[in-house]
Amino acid sequence: MKKIGIILSGCGVYDGSEIQEAVLALLAIERRNQEAVCFAPDAAQSDVVNHLTGKPETGARNVLAESARIARGKVHPLSEAGAKDLDALVIPGGFGAAKNLCDFASKGADCAVLPALQSLIEGMYAAKKPMAFACISPVIAAKVWGKHGIELTMGSADSAAAKAAAAMGAKMIARHADQSWADTAHKVVSTPAYMEAKNITDVYLGIESMVHELLALA
Amino acid sequence: MKKIGIILSGCGVYDGSEIQEAVLALLAIERRNQEAVCFAPDAAQSDVVNHLTGKPETGARNVLAESARIARGKVHPLSEAGAKDLDALVIPGGFGAAKNLCDFASKGADCAVLPALQSLIEGMYAAKKPMAFACISPVIAAKVWGKHGIELTMGSADSAAAKAAAAMGAKMIARHADQSWADTAHKVVSTPAYMEAKNITDVYLGIESMVHELLALA
Repeated sequence: MKKIGIILSGCGVYDGSEIQEAVLALLAIERRNQEAVCFAPDAAQSDVVNHLTGKPETGARNVLAESARIARGKVHPLSEAGAKDLDALVIPGGFGAAKNLCDFASKGADCAVLPALQSLIEGMYAAKKPMAFACISPVIAAKVWGKHGIELTMGSADSAAAKAAAAMGAKMIARHADQSWADTAHKVVSTPAYMEAKNITDVYLGIESMVHELLALA
Repeated sequence: MKKIGIILSGCGVYDGSEIQEAVLALLAIERRNQEAVCFAPDAAQSDVVNHLTGKPETGARNVLAESARIARGKVHPLSEAGAKDLDALVIPGGFGAAKNLCDFASKGADCAVLPALQSLIEGMYAAKKPMAFACISPVIAAKVWGKHGIELTMGSADSAAAKAAAAMGAKMIARHADQSWADTAHKVVSTPAYMEAKNITDVYLGIESMVHELLALA
């Protein structure tokens, strides 16, 4: 049984992990009889958004405690995630990936990745262990490895996120929401998920494909 | 295409809807090419629980706004749900079903169901439209129809919830987490979900079975 780390960034598409993507990643891993282990930063969320109105709310929420809602309490501080303990890594999307795992949402191509995540990703890469990125989270891969010409999905090539990822050196690959793309040279898989998807069925199919490819590389 | 109402009760197993059950119900409905429409009470949550520690937190959260995290903003006030507009109803589990949709968590068999939900359920029943209940939410069905000897799942018959449901007149049916039970006479389907399940795969299988049976009755 392989141990797959899932990096969560809160609970809800506008200020945390995209819930459906995270749940479907958990399902895809466990149905294949592999072990999913969730991690999240023990830090304040960048912001709190009312998901009914789309507007900012007052009050602070902790990324780790909110991520625990998705994981039913079973989530560890990101600081405890080590490349030597994991066989593969998955980062679901949602604005939390661009606000709480890095500051792409405000800085674009000039963003910085959380140091603990940056070193985890570099450690996985050095150990030739595969990683998967859904929705907007490929911007993190673009930031860390863009200079290597890594191949990534990001929905439409015309989107601001895709243009920024390209500016960081990544090569954008056009895929539908029910598909994924494996850059086998860099052992990085990605899927557009809700950057493109109009419904949960396509997200399910895209995440299933992503996890299938990820395990094939593990 | 049939229109299936999903009644949410917040976002997180300890104070709202069980997220994985709700997402997998959405998936099961949409993959069968039916339309899922989410509703939730526009009211304050009964409480807010830190899902990392399991302990209460200060601060108020709104059931409708938190439910919107699961539904990506697409959720309507429960007051707008009408039996005449829906072909079937699904109520996922989580403590929110027992705290925010009724007060079973504090009152047990003496609980009351939210008036808007009670009348919706009675309207569906009068119109012979099917309903599905997962995890702890069958206590709501037990409260509304227990006197009719309705058949329901609730995990182990020894649990306090199962004993209370039996005290309300319901007949407890033993099922594994990957199974569901259809009371075809009353058009009510249920599955134990996380009352019994040890992993997301069994919840997925149980919810798939529940939705399959629900649509067969619709």
